[in-house]
Amino acid sequence: MSRGPIDYSSAGVDYKRIDALKVRAQQAARSTARHLVGRGMRELERSRGESAYVVDVGGTLLASVTECLGTKALVADAVRAISGRTHYDTLAQDTIAMAVNDLITVGAAPVSVHAYWAAGSSDWFSDAERMEDLVRGWQAACDRCKAVWGGGETPALSGVVEPGRIDLAASCVGTVPSGRLMLGERLAAGDAIVLLAASGIHANGVSLARKLAERLEGGYAARIADGRPFGEALLDPTVLYAPVMESVWSAGIAPHYCVNITGHGWRKLMRHPGSFTYRLTAVPPRPPVLEFLQRELPLDPAEAYGSLNMGAGFAMLVAPGDAQAAVRAALGAGVQAWVCGAVEPGARRVVIEPLGITYESDDLKLRA
Amino acid sequence: MSRGPIDYSSAGVDYKRIDALKVRAQQAARSTARHLVGRGMRELERSRGESAYVVDVGGTLLASVTECLGTKALVADAVRAISGRTHYDTLAQDTIAMAVNDLITVGAAPVSVHAYWAAGSSDWFSDAERMEDLVRGWQAACDRCKAVWGGGETPALSGVVEPGRIDLAASCVGTVPSGRLMLGERLAAGDAIVLLAASGIHANGVSLARKLAERLEGGYAARIADGRPFGEALLDPTVLYAPVMESVWSAGIAPHYCVNITGHGWRKLMRHPGSFTYRLTAVPPRPPVLEFLQRELPLDPAEAYGSLNMGAGFAMLVAPGDAQAAVRAALGAGVQAWVCGAVEPGARRVVIEPLGITYESDDLKLRA
Repeated sequence: MSRGPIDYSSAGVDYKRIDALKVRAQQAARSTARHLVGRGMRELERSRGESAYVVDVGGTLLASVTECLGTKALVADAVRAISGRTHYDTLAQDTIAMAVNDLITVGAAPVSVHAYWAAGSSDWFSDAERMEDLVRGWQAACDRCKAVWGGGETPALSGVVEPGRIDLAASCVGTVPSGRLMLGERLAAGDAIVLLAASGIHANGVSLARKLAERLEGGYAARIADGRPFGEALLDPTVLYAPVMESVWSAGIAPHYCVNITGHGWRKLMRHPGSFTYRLTAVPPRPPVLEFLQRELPLDPAEAYGSLNMGAGFAMLVAPGDAQAAVRAALGAGVQAWVCGAVEPGARRVVIEPLGITYESDDLKLRA
Repeated sequence: MSRGPIDYSSAGVDYKRIDALKVRAQQAARSTARHLVGRGMRELERSRGESAYVVDVGGTLLASVTECLGTKALVADAVRAISGRTHYDTLAQDTIAMAVNDLITVGAAPVSVHAYWAAGSSDWFSDAERMEDLVRGWQAACDRCKAVWGGGETPALSGVVEPGRIDLAASCVGTVPSGRLMLGERLAAGDAIVLLAASGIHANGVSLARKLAERLEGGYAARIADGRPFGEALLDPTVLYAPVMESVWSAGIAPHYCVNITGHGWRKLMRHPGSFTYRLTAVPPRPPVLEFLQRELPLDPAEAYGSLNMGAGFAMLVAPGDAQAAVRAALGAGVQAWVCGAVEPGARRVVIEPLGITYESDDLKLRA
């Protein structure tokens, strides 16, 4: 079997093509804002291009987002044969995390979540153990985020979704409590970069991990450095950062900007459109599963940090005087955090000093 | 080729299995309502089991829904070879209609829509004509519903979504203007049943139509009674009923209950949990494509009206004195409507007198 490097393109994901579509769709979407005129509503235009869309409805700030799990269910389906567990309870948490971790970046607290479970056929739903895990995990993740599970859609899409598979996604609506709106206005040179620990791969880079499993001796059963099977470690659920953010707000800390580190990895740190350089002087420890992935694929550091979370699933950019308190607040919510760098005036780029990596502005094009 | 009847089960859709899951998920979902306590919010419990979920957020009533298109894109993909058009502009309207037509049943007006376009691979997005049609159609449907296109998700899900295919869905958030909340409290014996015209199959029963096309001489190019190709007629976009409802509300009519007639066809007319008999004394004309489908599959009348819209895409149940005004308001918004029957006290059932059909309460189980 080939031992050459695997990149995203060979794994079926071409971000350049998707990004072009995103830009075109964003332009069309902007034109619809006029429909709020005369209804006591207005969109917060700055939220376009951010991770959640925000509308002011008669003084209430509503945030909304729709996100999908990606292909992580394929890993669960394969690992079930080894582990004897369905893993759909943790996939439920992953799916909700994709939506909720985006929603909270604008300062919102989740209110309600809708489930989108599109199966390849009705048969999917007759596996009682898997179905129960999915329902239970969905409920538990809602509980942890203090969100109401408002409803959902469970279609059988034979011919669209692959036989035996399911497309999992979540929509989340939240409100932004007074004083918490965070659309980038407050970000300033000198702000500290606080990175929050990831549990593992979360749900980005899974296509790469699947490609690796195909050619790995032992496949998903291969052991990683801490002795765990690769497949099971991949399935560690995404951290739900909503309780962390609530802990931070409760501690009287108002972050200046937040980034959910998903696709594009640490390139996402320059999500803000302003001219700032994000200089990282420290990096958090890599979860063993990501260390394994980086070595075995292999990915050079720039590829790894440019596409995976590498141990940092979420970033808070805070006033320098708030940085240590933010770390403590995160720990109080059970999530490790580190002050890893600072925001500087200068060209929009991310510099990871310990690794000699620089991502330039052109490496991340999310906005129209 | 077989000429035997095609039912939903052989077409890959088993509503019984899906309904069991829905009931289990609804029970788990209900338990999460406590997360609104102490936040100045409460859920409107009656909205559970309705077509949209409603939360009171500090006096603002928020409605939300997530819905998918189903498998209609498979028809578009096949018909494109005949028609030379992608039809993704009308599929966009179908997808938004699935969400918005649900949302408005509780009295809400749409505020924002999120797109969920999950493709089998990134290649899907490089067909510029199709992509442009999808974006343009999405924008146009938002315009017609006076909804803002707030954002979306465009993943490439190789291994989950079939190669070359796309899973289209929409999430919609709306608000319920003062006095418009409609969760069933007002429904009363004596109310008139006003049915709104469907344009064709909309997006329910498409699996049946695809099965038929497979065995039909000429397939999607077969001519139906009005001379149009079967496939193109199938692709007539779902009526957006939001402008109709706005026209009705503007005319000073407060419907007592509304039903979006989708899966389960006219059985949905007894969506309300109360003990009422819905007696239809007239039926609207069948769109030629549904007449063709019913005859060619074949479906007996009870099967046809129990799974397809048969020309009625939406029902308003209104005070008898409002019925004619509701019909006029619908016409004013460009949609034909008919007063087709009345709500009676009695067992929960739907009686379609002209066709000798009765659906009993057990034929529609949507609630936990």
